[in-house]
Amino acid sequence: MKVQSSKEFKLQREVEYGTPEQNKAVKEIVAAIKKEGDTALLRYTERFDGALLEPGQLRVTPEELQAAYSKVEESFVLAIRAAAANIRAFHARQKRNSWMDMQPDGTILGQIIRPLKRVGVYVPGGKAAYPSSVLMNVIPAQIAGVPEIVMVTPPSTGGTEGIDPYILVAAAEAGVNEMYRVGGAQAIAALAFGTESIAPVDKICGPGNIYVALAKREVYGVVDIDSIAGPSEIVVLADDTAIPSYVAADLLSQAEHDEMASAILVTPSQSLADAVAAEVELQLQLLPRQAIARASVENYGAIIVVESMEEGISVVNRLAPEHLEIVTLDPMSLVGSIENAGAIFLGAYSSEPVGDYFAGPNHIIPTNGTARFSSPVDVDDFIKKSSLIYYSKEALLRDGKTIIELARREGLEGHARAIEIRLENEEKGGDGNGEQ
Amino acid sequence: MKVQSSKEFKLQREVEYGTPEQNKAVKEIVAAIKKEGDTALLRYTERFDGALLEPGQLRVTPEELQAAYSKVEESFVLAIRAAAANIRAFHARQKRNSWMDMQPDGTILGQIIRPLKRVGVYVPGGKAAYPSSVLMNVIPAQIAGVPEIVMVTPPSTGGTEGIDPYILVAAAEAGVNEMYRVGGAQAIAALAFGTESIAPVDKICGPGNIYVALAKREVYGVVDIDSIAGPSEIVVLADDTAIPSYVAADLLSQAEHDEMASAILVTPSQSLADAVAAEVELQLQLLPRQAIARASVENYGAIIVVESMEEGISVVNRLAPEHLEIVTLDPMSLVGSIENAGAIFLGAYSSEPVGDYFAGPNHIIPTNGTARFSSPVDVDDFIKKSSLIYYSKEALLRDGKTIIELARREGLEGHARAIEIRLENEEKGGDGNGEQ
Repeated sequence: MKVQSSKEFKLQREVEYGTPEQNKAVKEIVAAIKKEGDTALLRYTERFDGALLEPGQLRVTPEELQAAYSKVEESFVLAIRAAAANIRAFHARQKRNSWMDMQPDGTILGQIIRPLKRVGVYVPGGKAAYPSSVLMNVIPAQIAGVPEIVMVTPPSTGGTEGIDPYILVAAAEAGVNEMYRVGGAQAIAALAFGTESIAPVDKICGPGNIYVALAKREVYGVVDIDSIAGPSEIVVLADDTAIPSYVAADLLSQAEHDEMASAILVTPSQSLADAVAAEVELQLQLLPRQAIARASVENYGAIIVVESMEEGISVVNRLAPEHLEIVTLDPMSLVGSIENAGAIFLGAYSSEPVGDYFAGPNHIIPTNGTARFSSPVDVDDFIKKSSLIYYSKEALLRDGKTIIELARREGLEGHARAIEIRLENEEKGGDGNGEQ
Repeated sequence: MKVQSSKEFKLQREVEYGTPEQNKAVKEIVAAIKKEGDTALLRYTERFDGALLEPGQLRVTPEELQAAYSKVEESFVLAIRAAAANIRAFHARQKRNSWMDMQPDGTILGQIIRPLKRVGVYVPGGKAAYPSSVLMNVIPAQIAGVPEIVMVTPPSTGGTEGIDPYILVAAAEAGVNEMYRVGGAQAIAALAFGTESIAPVDKICGPGNIYVALAKREVYGVVDIDSIAGPSEIVVLADDTAIPSYVAADLLSQAEHDEMASAILVTPSQSLADAVAAEVELQLQLLPRQAIARASVENYGAIIVVESMEEGISVVNRLAPEHLEIVTLDPMSLVGSIENAGAIFLGAYSSEPVGDYFAGPNHIIPTNGTARFSSPVDVDDFIKKSSLIYYSKEALLRDGKTIIELARREGLEGHARAIEIRLENEEKGGDGNGEQ
């Protein structure tokens, strides 16, 4: 792992927008689902997932769910329940109430907060099917009060009728109401436009391959989507009190995700930098996913030696990492100076995987420097707000002329007259109908 | 204005994605600004706005601002201040605090809420320059605590050195820190990537023409953007206690915005339907923007006669309008059944322009049915959240094995080992460095 100064270091960031062919394929799939519904959905499911299904077989049955429970270890169910309880407790703190502000003149202004009605969660197939991500996408929606939470996942991952039983159990424990064995761009289009078998949703979230990502972009506006996640990132900001083997292990826990994942140590301590570099090499050799982790470390990893903690903090704020670990004896004292980081882990025991799986905060966190302006997934992502305006007659008579002046200034005479016609009529004593 | 049943009625919605030529032009402009900075910015400003400027002339000076105040009526300044005070009071109710949850074992979990650091507000030139929109974009950012709020607007609208003095005054009253006389796609690119004269921002908001909208899409990801607004919409849900002339005036106040604006009355009362149709025709003939309003009413307007209020409510929820007026004797009793509406106006005196200019809630509201899943602009649009995880040694020793099981289940051995190495080391009594 390269040890370098902050001047030498330059972060490489890449965002996938897909090839023209991939974009064309996705547009065709989305259009076909919109036009043909189930017919196209089943056709693509056979073509891409090799599963020949009847419409009636798209939805996962209660019996299949029961079967899934019998296939997983009880310790897994208990672990998922413990994690889900922590995630619920944390996200429950984010819930907000509608409010109203009632004024003496009878005017009422307010903000109504409601859950989305129906949300679709995409779960990738194969090795990328992570039960923990099911919890992290579903539980915030459930806490927000979303009554209908739908999961789609491709039927090509072995296990229960083509779906990984661990995914089914995690979804059931998280509170998914409906599960369908469909995946890819066709599943995203089905959620957006609806088919005979799958009712349309208001928002689609969850990770997926490039086709899924392009399909989400394609249907955005018809439904809401979550942000497209980039490769995982971790930055560890540590001084010489950090334990090199812990730091190295945490860097590698992100590096093993993806060749494009980025694991970076920022430290004023040359000795820590050298020790971590050695530890990374040592631990890499024992890692099953060594090839992936090594590629990540070599292409996107770095150990940056800075002049001071202050410089280290400014490097962190420039990187705006998805995950930040601060490993010093008094890490809390540095939090106030961290402007940009999706999730901040403090001290020697807050290893990043603690947050990935268990502590409670969401593990879906802005990547690629977008922590500058965006936030981890939370309850706010599954609500909508409506403004409420109940203006009293007294208030309108008081403020009407000001409103008319502002409207005329903008050349919107129709706006001015909507107020004026009321003022004139009420000065004539009104015709009674207006009285509230 | 057509009177029809809810069965006959079908809402037409259109979203502009621009022509291939427009998309190509915007990509070129954005790339040139990114590469050449001010040089390209000044070149496009001369080409598109006919303004030949030096870099030093891009920023509006305090003297120009002072001159703008001398050009506007005092009554306008007072009106803007009164509106701004109401908008501030409403949005101040939306502000939230960071929170922490401290557990007996020493674990601390929390959510840190911070304002964005720098926000750019686009203000269109010409007739589309609305002082009220300046307030509605700037004040929520200011209440959120954004320290740097930048306004850009094209120098082609007459008035102070090419900028409408009413816009400059509104921006100053709202709390803009920097103002630049640039517009179009080139201004959006300058805000996203920065130039020698304009530092880059974290988020860009505000309405604009198709080139501005396409440029915002193009830079999305480098910065955050607000949603692209469609044509304005109003739905009035009224019974026979409504005053036809008021309803007609409110419908026309939206219709005059844009030929594609949509103004719809939904009512169980045939008599109200007929009376409003007649009033609309009457008032149309007196409207300066008659041509626009008439096109809107004829192409996108409707008077829908429903069987009952219940059916009316379901029509409203299907339309998910930007603005909804409920004009009955007890409108508050219907609010609970309205699932989808950006802003809800209640009773005979809550004419939609009251919300456009003065009451306090934001007038930037989801259009095109997106109220199903999105919300009016508010303070939340200008903050970012970071999760905080400070896991204690005790908690890690307690939960470590569960975390390891979940990580191994997902095949992420590196995640498991990051926890395991700590458990093993601590069982050996640690080496001291880990102690917090």
